[in-house]
Amino acid sequence: MKTTKKILLPENEMPKYWYNIVADMKNKPMPMLNPKTKQPLVPEDMEALFAKELVKQEFSTERFIEIPEEVRQLYRIYRPTPLVRASGLEKALDTPAKIYFKNESVSPVGSHKLNSAIPQAYFNKIQGIKHMTTETGAGQWGSALSIACQHFGLDLKVFMVRVSYEQKPYRRSVMKTYGAQVFASPSAETETGRKLRQLYPETSGSLGMAISEAVEVALNQPDTRYGLGSVLNHVALHQTIIGLEAEKQLEMTGDYPDVVIGCFGGGSNFCGITFPFLKNNLTEGKTTRFIAAEPASCPKLTRGRFEYDFGDTSGYTPLIPMFTLGHDFEPADIHAGGLRYHGAGTIVSQLKRDNLIEAADVKQLESFEAGVLFSKAEGIIPAPESTHAICVAIKEALKAKEEGKEKVILFNLSGHGLIDMAAYEKYFSGQLKNFEVDEKEIENNINKLEKLAK
Amino acid sequence: MKTTKKILLPENEMPKYWYNIVADMKNKPMPMLNPKTKQPLVPEDMEALFAKELVKQEFSTERFIEIPEEVRQLYRIYRPTPLVRASGLEKALDTPAKIYFKNESVSPVGSHKLNSAIPQAYFNKIQGIKHMTTETGAGQWGSALSIACQHFGLDLKVFMVRVSYEQKPYRRSVMKTYGAQVFASPSAETETGRKLRQLYPETSGSLGMAISEAVEVALNQPDTRYGLGSVLNHVALHQTIIGLEAEKQLEMTGDYPDVVIGCFGGGSNFCGITFPFLKNNLTEGKTTRFIAAEPASCPKLTRGRFEYDFGDTSGYTPLIPMFTLGHDFEPADIHAGGLRYHGAGTIVSQLKRDNLIEAADVKQLESFEAGVLFSKAEGIIPAPESTHAICVAIKEALKAKEEGKEKVILFNLSGHGLIDMAAYEKYFSGQLKNFEVDEKEIENNINKLEKLAK
Repeated sequence: MKTTKKILLPENEMPKYWYNIVADMKNKPMPMLNPKTKQPLVPEDMEALFAKELVKQEFSTERFIEIPEEVRQLYRIYRPTPLVRASGLEKALDTPAKIYFKNESVSPVGSHKLNSAIPQAYFNKIQGIKHMTTETGAGQWGSALSIACQHFGLDLKVFMVRVSYEQKPYRRSVMKTYGAQVFASPSAETETGRKLRQLYPETSGSLGMAISEAVEVALNQPDTRYGLGSVLNHVALHQTIIGLEAEKQLEMTGDYPDVVIGCFGGGSNFCGITFPFLKNNLTEGKTTRFIAAEPASCPKLTRGRFEYDFGDTSGYTPLIPMFTLGHDFEPADIHAGGLRYHGAGTIVSQLKRDNLIEAADVKQLESFEAGVLFSKAEGIIPAPESTHAICVAIKEALKAKEEGKEKVILFNLSGHGLIDMAAYEKYFSGQLKNFEVDEKEIENNINKLEKLAK
Repeated sequence: MKTTKKILLPENEMPKYWYNIVADMKNKPMPMLNPKTKQPLVPEDMEALFAKELVKQEFSTERFIEIPEEVRQLYRIYRPTPLVRASGLEKALDTPAKIYFKNESVSPVGSHKLNSAIPQAYFNKIQGIKHMTTETGAGQWGSALSIACQHFGLDLKVFMVRVSYEQKPYRRSVMKTYGAQVFASPSAETETGRKLRQLYPETSGSLGMAISEAVEVALNQPDTRYGLGSVLNHVALHQTIIGLEAEKQLEMTGDYPDVVIGCFGGGSNFCGITFPFLKNNLTEGKTTRFIAAEPASCPKLTRGRFEYDFGDTSGYTPLIPMFTLGHDFEPADIHAGGLRYHGAGTIVSQLKRDNLIEAADVKQLESFEAGVLFSKAEGIIPAPESTHAICVAIKEALKAKEEGKEKVILFNLSGHGLIDMAAYEKYFSGQLKNFEVDEKEIENNINKLEKLAK
């Protein structure tokens, strides 16, 4: 448990604008393509699926986009979140590095996901939409959108990846408590789900499959739109409030990060914590490193390839230019359910191609080891997803120790793990293992993609 | 989800003293008795069990007791906690009442229990104690003491009431993650436990039994002391930081509470939120009402009797002058495990005798109904214990509506329910029920007590 105090930002200094990194990228992200015409997607193509204002944000190249007052009011329930000096962890590692983390676990749903759930529900509401659909892996995004929809009077159907539905029953109950309907995906609710169940009767599901189901319902039901918790530009945009706050808070300490780390599933919290600092690399010549911490069992940035691919398993989404393992990739049943996704968003993928960010892979067992060390040192039990960022932060801190350098490390604690204690229990009792990916399978999956965009 | 902002106290205004209500009570609490001699307990009697400084606090009549700087540093990890205007709940109830809650769920362990766990571990540490033991019901206290002991390098054995051990497996894992050893009570670890298992082979355990076990170990193992999470004066003292902060925060709004509500198990959070306001009744002529919200299935304040009784089941503790259901009382298996205790502390019991506080009982089903309403309205899923306070607050707000009065209601949100989602799941699926107490059994239990102090 840390003994230095948290760094608090006064409420009136909470950012009033989100930051859109596209404005500062020399090489802009490549366009998504309409899968039928293979032509660059235009906003109209997306408006059947997403609220118009969100589509506008998706295509925007404006540097700063105003956060509506009603969204800021809701943000104030838990924002600004604390920046914490992890002095307990520093002591445990005996490192000269200064470690800071941004504590997004303090939101009522326990993770950063509310940062995008609130504006998504808001922009749907003001457009007169009545119903939303979404998918969720670990359940963090599903819980966040559930309470946001509840607040704005929208009803919500959540397709929850089957393995998480079973591994994390409490998450289901959280969504139910907030008034959402939850289905284990693949489900019998949709044509896609029924097909997938026939094709893969043993499947534990995946985010890609769940997205297909949620999209199908949104496209076929009146007054309904879909909400995505990661991958897309507008989601990354909403999440930048994390890094924008952290930047102001670090300023209060006089420190500036040498390295910024976020765990990586589709990119939402990674983009959120890094983009505002990456801006300073792009525009002010700073040289901070940025590391995406991904599971070794789902390593799109470290072992995937940059190709046009679908965002979902069934091919309902536009073609996305991204680092991918192929939309057929079935990730192992790791407990970090929020990281079990085959691809990265367009922005992150372009940044990776341009060597503006790095990626590191983390094995399941070392992620939990890091999580337990952090729990004892800082008093907060991290979500299995967040333990990946912690693990990489620890490695960086130990490297600093070897090198005798006083490095400043910042990572995002995307959420707490209090609803994921079953995973810790399994870790303690030796039931968890590492998973190897099948390089051949990935190669095959990706080779199939080459024709997609042509 | 509420749209008004939380009321934050600047960190430098966090109280530097705990408030000891004994100083202001006209009728002081009656003394605890040494069960062998039937003479008033003296500090030395307690020092085998508790750290000396805590015993000193237990007997103190000083009005304010300084919070050590090292404790305040740790408090600052999560304190000051927010005071929140529950405008979402007000709207849902369409009440003219203003409802505020103090959000103690933001601590890393999710409840107010850390407020006493930190100073208890601290005072043991500076006395050179190496090991601690304790009991826990729902697991909130056990988790809090686990991380506090971890921080100060003390090891900890936790005896967890069997029904909670089984109902709340995630809580066990939290304690393990923090490095504590956890036993289901009654356990095979202690003589008491083994006896109780013979006597009541079907027992689901109780706080009283678990206390007996923890006390036995503390008394028989060198360099070991026991820590209690409720009932005693020094615990109530530590918890007053809740109300002291709330008082300052309400001052910032210009409001003063007409009624203050806390759920009631042994009294820790109830005393914490109420005593600083009760002080103003005692010393400034304010007329605020104070309501202890207890489960209908464990109604010591509403249906118990004031007698000398043991704090535990096996009669290891001093005799305590308290409202009690008798130390043989076996509470029903309600999910609010933290409220399953047969007695109230000496201070609260005296205050109740003097009609300075009130009590109200809440049935299990109405407590969960209140919890779900609050979750939807405010975005935070409350602990099953806290739902009792919410339920009484809702009743008060609806009364205000009937009477057309703009009453100010304050309650303590003692903890969140994210680790107790199994209970909500059971509630949704209709598996929970209300429990009736057996008035005859209580009568018999209490009649047996009459001779105890003579």
